[in-house]
Amino acid sequence: MGVIATYLFPTHPDQQAIAEQHALGLTVGSWTDIPHLEQEQLRKNKGEVLSVEKGEEKDRVRIHYPSANFTADLPAILTTVYGKLSFFEGHELVDLTFDDELLAQFPGPRFGVKGIREQLGVADRPLLKAIFKGVLGRDLSFFADQLEDLVAGGIDLIKDDEILFENDLTPFTKRITTAKEILDRHYEKTGHRVLYAVNLSGKTNELHDKAERAAELGANALLFNVHAYGLDALQTLRENNNIGLPLVAHSALSGVLSGQTGSGYPYALTVGKLTRLVGGDFSLFPSPYGNVSISLADALAINKTLTEEKPFEQTFAVPSAGVHPGMVPQLLQDFGDNLVVNAGGGIFGHPDGPIKGAQAFRAAIDASVKGISLEEAAQTNEPLKRAIDIWGTVGTSS
Amino acid sequence: MGVIATYLFPTHPDQQAIAEQHALGLTVGSWTDIPHLEQEQLRKNKGEVLSVEKGEEKDRVRIHYPSANFTADLPAILTTVYGKLSFFEGHELVDLTFDDELLAQFPGPRFGVKGIREQLGVADRPLLKAIFKGVLGRDLSFFADQLEDLVAGGIDLIKDDEILFENDLTPFTKRITTAKEILDRHYEKTGHRVLYAVNLSGKTNELHDKAERAAELGANALLFNVHAYGLDALQTLRENNNIGLPLVAHSALSGVLSGQTGSGYPYALTVGKLTRLVGGDFSLFPSPYGNVSISLADALAINKTLTEEKPFEQTFAVPSAGVHPGMVPQLLQDFGDNLVVNAGGGIFGHPDGPIKGAQAFRAAIDASVKGISLEEAAQTNEPLKRAIDIWGTVGTSS
Repeated sequence: MGVIATYLFPTHPDQQAIAEQHALGLTVGSWTDIPHLEQEQLRKNKGEVLSVEKGEEKDRVRIHYPSANFTADLPAILTTVYGKLSFFEGHELVDLTFDDELLAQFPGPRFGVKGIREQLGVADRPLLKAIFKGVLGRDLSFFADQLEDLVAGGIDLIKDDEILFENDLTPFTKRITTAKEILDRHYEKTGHRVLYAVNLSGKTNELHDKAERAAELGANALLFNVHAYGLDALQTLRENNNIGLPLVAHSALSGVLSGQTGSGYPYALTVGKLTRLVGGDFSLFPSPYGNVSISLADALAINKTLTEEKPFEQTFAVPSAGVHPGMVPQLLQDFGDNLVVNAGGGIFGHPDGPIKGAQAFRAAIDASVKGISLEEAAQTNEPLKRAIDIWGTVGTSS
Repeated sequence: MGVIATYLFPTHPDQQAIAEQHALGLTVGSWTDIPHLEQEQLRKNKGEVLSVEKGEEKDRVRIHYPSANFTADLPAILTTVYGKLSFFEGHELVDLTFDDELLAQFPGPRFGVKGIREQLGVADRPLLKAIFKGVLGRDLSFFADQLEDLVAGGIDLIKDDEILFENDLTPFTKRITTAKEILDRHYEKTGHRVLYAVNLSGKTNELHDKAERAAELGANALLFNVHAYGLDALQTLRENNNIGLPLVAHSALSGVLSGQTGSGYPYALTVGKLTRLVGGDFSLFPSPYGNVSISLADALAINKTLTEEKPFEQTFAVPSAGVHPGMVPQLLQDFGDNLVVNAGGGIFGHPDGPIKGAQAFRAAIDASVKGISLEEAAQTNEPLKRAIDIWGTVGTSS
């Protein structure tokens, strides 16, 4: 019972002995110099080196930490397995494997891919998500106008910019009620549900009250800068049944944790596995295509941990930035069908405005799902044609 | 009004233009392509490049972010100034400078160096802090025995190991009440107050209740793994007047944020300036002397931000690990008199046990403050003599 931490340590001829020292130092402290009777008492707490695989620059070390040593929360687990080791240069924590008993104490997504698809009534295609453009410093009418256009264009989901915090021009509660009115009207007219994720921000100890208030006011999703607060804060929001809303986890600041090759945690752990473990329904991360980007390998590794079958509901991968309609086939090839196509500039930069911009994306998505080329689809879809004229298409063979 | 972020960006011939792009991208989004009237409206939100200093490998860039863009909390401020930039390899956030109006919205330490010295009645020497040895897996009597020895030896402060979480053998509330009894008895006998920092852990949304309960039970300090929760969580604990206890901030996991040269934040920001800003009375960090260590330059930079005169009460620097009595003069030379000498192995490894081990430290501290060499002091102090026989002294000229 416990957790297995997989590390990469700078290669060393005595790696086995070094690993044993860490396994003791991070659990019972010492071993050989304590009496046999005490050893018996401490055996259930003792860390154990499971394997040491030698590599060229780094050795792969796996250490088991018993559940007896920590409570079932990430602050305790991460402090145990990496609190001290994080100070050692080049010592990476590359994976955490929880046993079933420990896993059962984490929630996973409340809705996940399946639940969100049911809410939206969209079973068979990637979702389309939009990003507001330049709401900071603008007023509610600006916000409302953008939202009207985007839902008219056929988006499924929209979120606040992650840098839009509580402010006088577009207060949190007003954004919720304004959006609700627009989204409800849209649903009555079209039967099409749209989620709006309002940015839940402020002091850590006020998050729950604010989120519950948001739910009461009719918010239907929450955006959360999880790495500005810690993964456990997201988990507590997931576990609060008075909130009960889809949670859109934003990866802002995760580059501090995962952005440096050869140190810290990989994105697949922070933005992937652990974000799903604690209950993110959506995980946003920089796409490998834009100017704010991570590597394709990192993006695919995130996607894998979010969508592999077990042990929780799947989390929607939301690769963001640099996405235009001509890239949709590439996105689907890279990430599969269970993703969210997320666009800002690719919608607002459309020559005929954001409604057509969103329509172009929907057409690209529909065509791609059916295996129709965008060039062919564009012949009968003017918005898509105009988008491709500007941005071109991206070959899926690349 | 706002915050100035100082960055190091990889050097680039067009750094001024790149910096301008970031200053816009992280605030109002764009500028030259929006109408003059809207520019007027957005001017109060616009980020501004204050300076670009060219360097050999990195350029130093300072950007001002208006307070209008965020609420006065670190999650909002860090997300604004570094949420996206953290994804760019080699882009470091090296400092944050808050204007007075913004600063006034942060608390700083409740007690700080001055308040803690008053509580303990120790005005004129560094404090001595001990670390429990191997409590994990042991029971309350083991915990109580160690505590009795350590207070008998003359320590001022003791903390739980940061990897000791809620558990059946030494439950949180029992550690508090057991320690309180021992510390109260010690005070009645000697007039000497000792602080015991119990490890506040568990789920983020339970921290306040647990901390308030701890205060009710007579806890007199809290240990907190702040980087497992985020700096804002520490701030909310500092601001809760129903808690009102000295806060010992532990730097576990801060190596993820600050341990990699050329990326992330420096320790002076995370473990130094911001820990003080949000209210840590003590900030623990790896000493530059032990096996878990940071550089002397980093340690001194942390110390500087914790103890410079303004703008808040000073935070005690607690360089930890690898400290034995013979190093005390070096510690004082490096960190000044307002520090906490923190020892584990240097107390428990004393050949005559932990009481003598603590006494040796007190003798070393008293001598060092008076400018008496340890060799001279050891002539009239047996515990110190025995410690020096084993570990030697460290020359302050080194």
